[in-house]
Amino acid sequence: MFLNTVEIITKKRDGYSLSKEEIEFLIQGYVKGEIPDYQMAAWAMAVFFQGLTPAETAALTLSMANSGERLDFNSLGFVLDKHSTGGVGDTTTLIVLPLVALAGGKIAKLSGRGLGHTGGTVDKLEAIPGFKTELTEEEIFWQVENLGLAIAGQTKNLVPADKLLYALRDVTATVDSLPLIAASIMSKKIAGGAQGIVLDVKVGRGAFMKDLESAQKLAELMVDLGRQVGLKVTAVISDMEVPLSRAQGNSLEVLEAVNVLQGKGSRRLRELSLVLAGEMLALDNKKAHLANSLDNGLAYEMFDKLVTIQGGNLQKLKVKALYKKQLLAEKSGYFSVADALKIGEIVRDLGAGRKVKGAKVDPDVGIYFTRDLGDRINQGEVLATIYANNEAALVEAMAKLGGAVKIGPVPYNRPVVLDIIRSGAKL
Amino acid sequence: MFLNTVEIITKKRDGYSLSKEEIEFLIQGYVKGEIPDYQMAAWAMAVFFQGLTPAETAALTLSMANSGERLDFNSLGFVLDKHSTGGVGDTTTLIVLPLVALAGGKIAKLSGRGLGHTGGTVDKLEAIPGFKTELTEEEIFWQVENLGLAIAGQTKNLVPADKLLYALRDVTATVDSLPLIAASIMSKKIAGGAQGIVLDVKVGRGAFMKDLESAQKLAELMVDLGRQVGLKVTAVISDMEVPLSRAQGNSLEVLEAVNVLQGKGSRRLRELSLVLAGEMLALDNKKAHLANSLDNGLAYEMFDKLVTIQGGNLQKLKVKALYKKQLLAEKSGYFSVADALKIGEIVRDLGAGRKVKGAKVDPDVGIYFTRDLGDRINQGEVLATIYANNEAALVEAMAKLGGAVKIGPVPYNRPVVLDIIRSGAKL
Repeated sequence: MFLNTVEIITKKRDGYSLSKEEIEFLIQGYVKGEIPDYQMAAWAMAVFFQGLTPAETAALTLSMANSGERLDFNSLGFVLDKHSTGGVGDTTTLIVLPLVALAGGKIAKLSGRGLGHTGGTVDKLEAIPGFKTELTEEEIFWQVENLGLAIAGQTKNLVPADKLLYALRDVTATVDSLPLIAASIMSKKIAGGAQGIVLDVKVGRGAFMKDLESAQKLAELMVDLGRQVGLKVTAVISDMEVPLSRAQGNSLEVLEAVNVLQGKGSRRLRELSLVLAGEMLALDNKKAHLANSLDNGLAYEMFDKLVTIQGGNLQKLKVKALYKKQLLAEKSGYFSVADALKIGEIVRDLGAGRKVKGAKVDPDVGIYFTRDLGDRINQGEVLATIYANNEAALVEAMAKLGGAVKIGPVPYNRPVVLDIIRSGAKL
Repeated sequence: MFLNTVEIITKKRDGYSLSKEEIEFLIQGYVKGEIPDYQMAAWAMAVFFQGLTPAETAALTLSMANSGERLDFNSLGFVLDKHSTGGVGDTTTLIVLPLVALAGGKIAKLSGRGLGHTGGTVDKLEAIPGFKTELTEEEIFWQVENLGLAIAGQTKNLVPADKLLYALRDVTATVDSLPLIAASIMSKKIAGGAQGIVLDVKVGRGAFMKDLESAQKLAELMVDLGRQVGLKVTAVISDMEVPLSRAQGNSLEVLEAVNVLQGKGSRRLRELSLVLAGEMLALDNKKAHLANSLDNGLAYEMFDKLVTIQGGNLQKLKVKALYKKQLLAEKSGYFSVADALKIGEIVRDLGAGRKVKGAKVDPDVGIYFTRDLGDRINQGEVLATIYANNEAALVEAMAKLGGAVKIGPVPYNRPVVLDIIRSGAKL
């Protein structure tokens, strides 16, 4: 069969379904440079309007997953992975991995860097002095086999099709397409080699998905994709109206994860971590008293082991910001709102995040709230401390932070876990 | 105001109208190479789905018209132009120009080459030995002023935005958008400098527009565009289910135009030419007994003058094909169907047309029907002669021609002129 790119674009444009061969032709041709950006851009815009069927989405996801190297953990048994669609104050990975490993699960987590107002796990871990996120495939295998967990930055040869297509979508207004988002995420997870995946789909003003319905659709799409390609996938839909933890910024967030790993720390971060870890273990038919592991210090010990094995030293992790300034409560009441998007942007502008790919991040800047959302506070008490390495940035952050939080008569009461979509429920 | 291409694409994608400034930013950026093909492709696909308002279409048309040189005939008074959306066997230009000039109208006609199954006037005129279609601006002005008519190939600097955008649309499945088609045609007509324009919008299986409703919409769009930019525009919607004349192929078609110019020849070609010429003169508030000019030989004389001035010699025009083969009527009846698309393709494959831009065309090959659509024919009589310069092509044309024509119990009876849309009617 002779395939023609213009005919494939036309077919999608006119609402017809593409065959597996046609989708593979597109993706392979694009990665090889035989199909130019402008044709992929027109196709992506046609997909934005016409959507993709579940079968087309699966074919796209597999074609993308197969566009580069793939890891294969089958020799190690059932290996788990998790993925978050991106939020503010989210260090669940640092808590979930030790919890799952302690309960006998095996985890190989491939993580990314942050972009825009959302943070990336790799950036956070690199705040730990010495911590190495660039692991070879052999190192990952060795750690999963012997310690039960490994966490690494994505290798360069994983899913080149996604790198190309995502960069193109970013500049052609074709990012907001649920099947393209689902294929982008799941192609990377498939290439990552795990057999069981828990997805944390964030929803709210600090997340990519702004409303519950879109988040549920995306979650169902990805769970279904997993089913189609023979992976066990559960999606947890979690609240991102407010930051997940009291800490924002790389070092501060790792230290707060340590707090949670020691049975203390932010309530919402602890709660979501327990749910994610529980869902991961359930995919591996395992169960454990996970809260105990936090409260008895074992989870912290496991995390410390992971850090040490990957070259880091937790004891050396300190927040070394030059400037600190406190935000005091203007009145008494409940800590009722913290705008996740605004706070993410303030922290990024302090230097903790990046506006463009490849920029350096500052591990030490950020914000630490003295209260969890929903806690009471009295007028004049310290609500937050801003950490900055630049006076102008500090002043700007201080000016904006007041408008991003509210103290009111009712506590914030949106649950952190809004929905859980399991593959079994659909079968 | 700082304009951002991704935001402009997003705006159009989400169904909002773009401002004049945003459209100019796109077109100017694209022509300068500052906006890449992939962003224009995504925008064009968004336009395919969301359309353009009349104001957006006008802004796009003017931006495109202004992207290169523009001719300006104001010093010569009211100058006319015509344009056909492309058909098979259409040599109305060769007949209309002398008719209009004889009646005192002034015409500066910029013509294109053929592509696909439709012919181009420049290709046809170049079948006349010596005929020169590359005129300088000065030559065009001199001819219009002194003879009343000139016909030239489009200069390279006219509407570069359209050349770029059309080539891009062609490979990104974004050709089929009425506002983009209207802007493409009208930007060239505006840059061509005439103040009165008659558009021949073809409809039927041999045309780009397949149904009357789309053709009417496109016609209304272009007439309205003309009104918005201060041009007098009339659109004639004409039938392209069947070829317009008995002759197909460059030399054969010019000879058939000469037949019509001498009061003989194909009935449908004569009828449409008279309507188009009448509408052109009406835009210039002129009237004439046009049929007389055909029947008394004056139109032919005027055409001969035009050919001579542009370096050609009509007397030397002969059909010199190496192979000729006759198609005989299989039964008696009316010549009831000739599929314009199939016949256009057969003639193109004989070598009269081109599949890719820049290819050479053969002036001598083609098909000549002995009958007009609707005429009676008896079994065994010659219905058509195929002219070829290559035996294999002849065999293939012969094999296909039988399937492209029909002799039946009822004559073909679709009128050649299906509708006329005048600007006045809308005001």
